[in-house]
Amino acid sequence: MAKRIINTTPKQDGFYMPGEFEPQEEVFMMCPYRGDNWRDGAKPAQEQYFAAAEAISRFAPVTMFAATEQYENCRFRLSEKIRVIELSYNDAWCRDIGPTFLVNGKGGRRAVSWEFNAWGGLKDGLYFPWDKDDLAAEKICELTRTDYYRTEGFVLEGGSIHTDGEGTILTTEMCLLSEGRNPSMTKAEIEKKLCDYLGAEKVIWLGDGIDPEETNGHIDDVACFIRPGEVCCIYTEDKNHPFYEASQDALRRLTEATDAKGRRLKVHKLCCVKKPVLTEGAETIDKRRGSATRKNGDLCIASYANFLICNKGVIVPQYDDENDSLALKQIKEMFPNYEVVGVRTKEIVYGGGNIHCITQQLPKP
Amino acid sequence: MAKRIINTTPKQDGFYMPGEFEPQEEVFMMCPYRGDNWRDGAKPAQEQYFAAAEAISRFAPVTMFAATEQYENCRFRLSEKIRVIELSYNDAWCRDIGPTFLVNGKGGRRAVSWEFNAWGGLKDGLYFPWDKDDLAAEKICELTRTDYYRTEGFVLEGGSIHTDGEGTILTTEMCLLSEGRNPSMTKAEIEKKLCDYLGAEKVIWLGDGIDPEETNGHIDDVACFIRPGEVCCIYTEDKNHPFYEASQDALRRLTEATDAKGRRLKVHKLCCVKKPVLTEGAETIDKRRGSATRKNGDLCIASYANFLICNKGVIVPQYDDENDSLALKQIKEMFPNYEVVGVRTKEIVYGGGNIHCITQQLPKP
Repeated sequence: MAKRIINTTPKQDGFYMPGEFEPQEEVFMMCPYRGDNWRDGAKPAQEQYFAAAEAISRFAPVTMFAATEQYENCRFRLSEKIRVIELSYNDAWCRDIGPTFLVNGKGGRRAVSWEFNAWGGLKDGLYFPWDKDDLAAEKICELTRTDYYRTEGFVLEGGSIHTDGEGTILTTEMCLLSEGRNPSMTKAEIEKKLCDYLGAEKVIWLGDGIDPEETNGHIDDVACFIRPGEVCCIYTEDKNHPFYEASQDALRRLTEATDAKGRRLKVHKLCCVKKPVLTEGAETIDKRRGSATRKNGDLCIASYANFLICNKGVIVPQYDDENDSLALKQIKEMFPNYEVVGVRTKEIVYGGGNIHCITQQLPKP
Repeated sequence: MAKRIINTTPKQDGFYMPGEFEPQEEVFMMCPYRGDNWRDGAKPAQEQYFAAAEAISRFAPVTMFAATEQYENCRFRLSEKIRVIELSYNDAWCRDIGPTFLVNGKGGRRAVSWEFNAWGGLKDGLYFPWDKDDLAAEKICELTRTDYYRTEGFVLEGGSIHTDGEGTILTTEMCLLSEGRNPSMTKAEIEKKLCDYLGAEKVIWLGDGIDPEETNGHIDDVACFIRPGEVCCIYTEDKNHPFYEASQDALRRLTEATDAKGRRLKVHKLCCVKKPVLTEGAETIDKRRGSATRKNGDLCIASYANFLICNKGVIVPQYDDENDSLALKQIKEMFPNYEVVGVRTKEIVYGGGNIHCITQQLPKP
């Protein structure tokens, strides 16, 4: 029921990725389960995924995918308004393994299934194998009856891109030029691929992200579009903060950039956590060959920028940090007509991601 | 997203099972895979399931469910217009384990999730365990966002009932009064359960079905409503035919019966295979503790009555038998304004069922 489109690109066919701030029909998530990534059998993480799902469901219908063995548990713990559907996947990052949905402004909707290799494949990926993850996007296309393009031979995760829906893509060099993804492609070739498959005209490159070890610096922990012409960027003046250099560089590049329409960007600063979040409870994580090892005290990527914009809501990570309320206040100022909802996500951050990483929106066609 | 309705019955809420001849929105099927029921790794059976799916898809959209390990194969082999969705189940009988969908004549749709125990549980069921089968109906309700009733403590399979959608249920004593299902209930209690959960007024009981060992005599191999007031019933004058006695008795009972509206039924005779179909290739079936054993030469339940009515089509089993074309002709006479399509199903019959057993229609609300 979902046709794979060959021989053309989304751009040729008039399709593009809309901004996250555009109307959404549904949000997809995947319940975490693997004990070799999540502490305590993934139970604390599940609890926070579920709380995030309930928060999001106030603004759009939510479908939570669940692995076979967790289906009943997942169905039991979520409220009835959330739909639970069985699906197999290796780990639970719907942003990175789900389809990137596209629209054409004429009622049409398609998607991109990017090749996925667990954030770096055999070079510096986080686990092996990743076969179920790589199929998940197309299964979601089948489910939603969405025709899709497949970028065989081009590796990308949804969390490494943001768009204004008006021709501009935001990404990082650290991730897209990494050795574990598309090492044989030049920066210009990668730019063209992004523009062809996201229906865009221009790529704004930031430098480093803030998690070199995890996703190789996904953009969605650093900066995002909040509407055309305006971006949010993490910011700290604390020179000892682990995110200081990356955030200062990002701010500088964004301030100097122009978008596809030639506009200077308005940059909104978003605070960082006062006290870095460090891994806890790693001693309960299952040992498994092929999976990266987590250690207590490892720096976690606790960024307030990993929020999800969902219709008239913005769902924002909270870490029991001194700056939690400041982050909510700053985001509320960026989104004056939205409801800003904080959700505690420390357990999700222990596993390597956050609210934006665990969600994937289905835009209205 | 699918609410379990408690404390009321469909009948109380004004819901009923519509006739199969009413408009259908979609048909669900499940791809077979288990090597301990199907010969040759289920590959010949898959081929015939796929052919049936393609035939049905001419009359309604088809969704084929596939177990994780068969998902890609299934997607590859079916045409693009058929939707493939991952699901776990023990064996591939969507009629018996899927939900029975109900409507209320006012645009509403609900469903029943019957308790399932593999056609007889630990008494004379066909395999153990059946946990995934028993959950499948509710997963399909989630998928289709259909609120449902659950008959905890009451065992039934969809293939053991037929309805005219006007208050009458057709079933067999052999199955519904069997020791492996609801042995502590009286016939009157079972009648009430059927009427409460199918929104009906009257049960017409036939005696024996034609497969005592398999489903304990499901009605859908013997007789069905083709429209209100009219039924189709298998028939043979050959006293040595293995189906002779059951079919003669069924014909007699149907001829004498009146439906919920007090009408005498018009009974259309449908021929049986000339030469009984016997199991072949059983030596390639996997051995497994807990699964019934199939032997070469076992009688198969090759009935032409196990057809599916699907909008303006009728999909009819064919066995390379001398009577194949007669069956098509007789069914064409019963359905003058329908397209009657034959599909070869000998491999499906080797596994214990047929076209009606492997499908489940979603009626239009």
